[in-house]
Amino acid sequence: MPDPWQDAMDHAVALARKAGSMVRDAVQNEMTITCKSSSVDLVTKTDQKVEKLIIESVKEKFPKHSFIGEESVAAGETCVLTDDPTWIVDPVDGTTNFVHGYPFVAISIGFAVNRKMEFGVVYSCIEDKMYTARKGKGAFCNGQTLQVSDQKDISQSIIATEFGSNRDAEVVDKIFSSMRKILCLPIHGMRGVGTAATNMCLVASGCVEAYYEIGIHCWDIAAGAAIVTEAGGVLMDVEGGPLDLMSRRVIAANNRNIAERIVKEIDAFTPLRDDAPIEPK
Amino acid sequence: MPDPWQDAMDHAVALARKAGSMVRDAVQNEMTITCKSSSVDLVTKTDQKVEKLIIESVKEKFPKHSFIGEESVAAGETCVLTDDPTWIVDPVDGTTNFVHGYPFVAISIGFAVNRKMEFGVVYSCIEDKMYTARKGKGAFCNGQTLQVSDQKDISQSIIATEFGSNRDAEVVDKIFSSMRKILCLPIHGMRGVGTAATNMCLVASGCVEAYYEIGIHCWDIAAGAAIVTEAGGVLMDVEGGPLDLMSRRVIAANNRNIAERIVKEIDAFTPLRDDAPIEPK
Repeated sequence: MPDPWQDAMDHAVALARKAGSMVRDAVQNEMTITCKSSSVDLVTKTDQKVEKLIIESVKEKFPKHSFIGEESVAAGETCVLTDDPTWIVDPVDGTTNFVHGYPFVAISIGFAVNRKMEFGVVYSCIEDKMYTARKGKGAFCNGQTLQVSDQKDISQSIIATEFGSNRDAEVVDKIFSSMRKILCLPIHGMRGVGTAATNMCLVASGCVEAYYEIGIHCWDIAAGAAIVTEAGGVLMDVEGGPLDLMSRRVIAANNRNIAERIVKEIDAFTPLRDDAPIEPK
Repeated sequence: MPDPWQDAMDHAVALARKAGSMVRDAVQNEMTITCKSSSVDLVTKTDQKVEKLIIESVKEKFPKHSFIGEESVAAGETCVLTDDPTWIVDPVDGTTNFVHGYPFVAISIGFAVNRKMEFGVVYSCIEDKMYTARKGKGAFCNGQTLQVSDQKDISQSIIATEFGSNRDAEVVDKIFSSMRKILCLPIHGMRGVGTAATNMCLVASGCVEAYYEIGIHCWDIAAGAAIVTEAGGVLMDVEGGPLDLMSRRVIAANNRNIAERIVKEIDAFTPLRDDAPIEPK
């Protein structure tokens, strides 16, 4: 039986490559920056231009599909995952990196049907690394098969996370407290490249054993979730139990041992869900 | 007048490239790991093999020069910087990354005369980026001129640092306290690729405004110091005042404004100096 979503996946890869080329061009040039939720939550004209390219192309080719995109949601579109075939897109994951020319910026395109990830495409465009995964068919980077690390001992691991863009004291307290507890297990080290999508691809590649974060959005992790799973990894909520794509919390790990060890150390908190009703202004 | 150290610098670049090729090969293969100061301070056969290559080649070609190398010091050699022409070498900066295949590993070769840096070579070998700087002649990456960021406002900056490999509670307290204060100034973000040498090259490249750390060694920062200076940046001790290469403390920044702002926030401490007398065992 032919794969019903192969067309969509091929299109996603082509779009990611085109978007990545736009982002690379923009890194060479001046850019216009505006702030979103806080002075450290940045958005650029490129984010908006790239999302417009992707959304218009998807709507033309797949008019019945739904679309959740970071910039569309910022502009007031709803963010609810239904059973429809749904594209979940971050046009520029790592906008702060992008603004500074820090070399990790990703185009993240996930695709869900019946609320399950069918494929994920993450293009780390400065490095020119194209990560892809189709459900049941494995994960790849530039055509090479990806496999998570086989490390079961967290003390022999590198764990990835981020400080995030929220600077509220209570949130920062919890982020630092979790980091410190995990660092002092001890582990080999803690890293973070500044994009959730790329951090997840590093889990899939076996360079780090796990990545966790609270505060990310569904468009940051949807594609990466497919890639980690297909590379043999596991996804988990930060309090254990299954990942909820809309909950803004994620652990992506090489295996359950490592994920569950991280659960024990995290000071969990509950950001406003991605699919929370929009409050009238 | 011909440059008296051009020969040495050409040799350093050739050695870094050869060493980088050995490191890249080793990343593809299994490796043997042993621990140094703690379970998170790793050394591999490759560190030792690469340092041996560099030291033997330098001693053959420049028999009158002195040599300070991470693995030689670990093996009991003295670590004192004299007025002699001195090679200061980290054969594998980012050993933890190396062990995990995390894509930032650098060969760092600095060269000082009369205790002043004359040139620096940092080869980020997985990325294949060759950073070089000769005093008075600018800094380059793969032949392209490097220039630090012109940002004067720390709230618009990315600052690089590392958690380090010391897991003593008192040290970790200070590291986290400094990080938190700087993060909440606020700044755009905090990053760290896991090697001091490469972090310094990112300052020189303008991707991050500054890098600071307490606990590094002279071989981690000697080459990077030359590169940052030649890219227009500044070096400072974490309590202000000039950098002391042997003090295991560094701020490398795009300008004095940013460096001095970081000085204000750091909870400084004083590790055992690199040139402290070796205690009899």
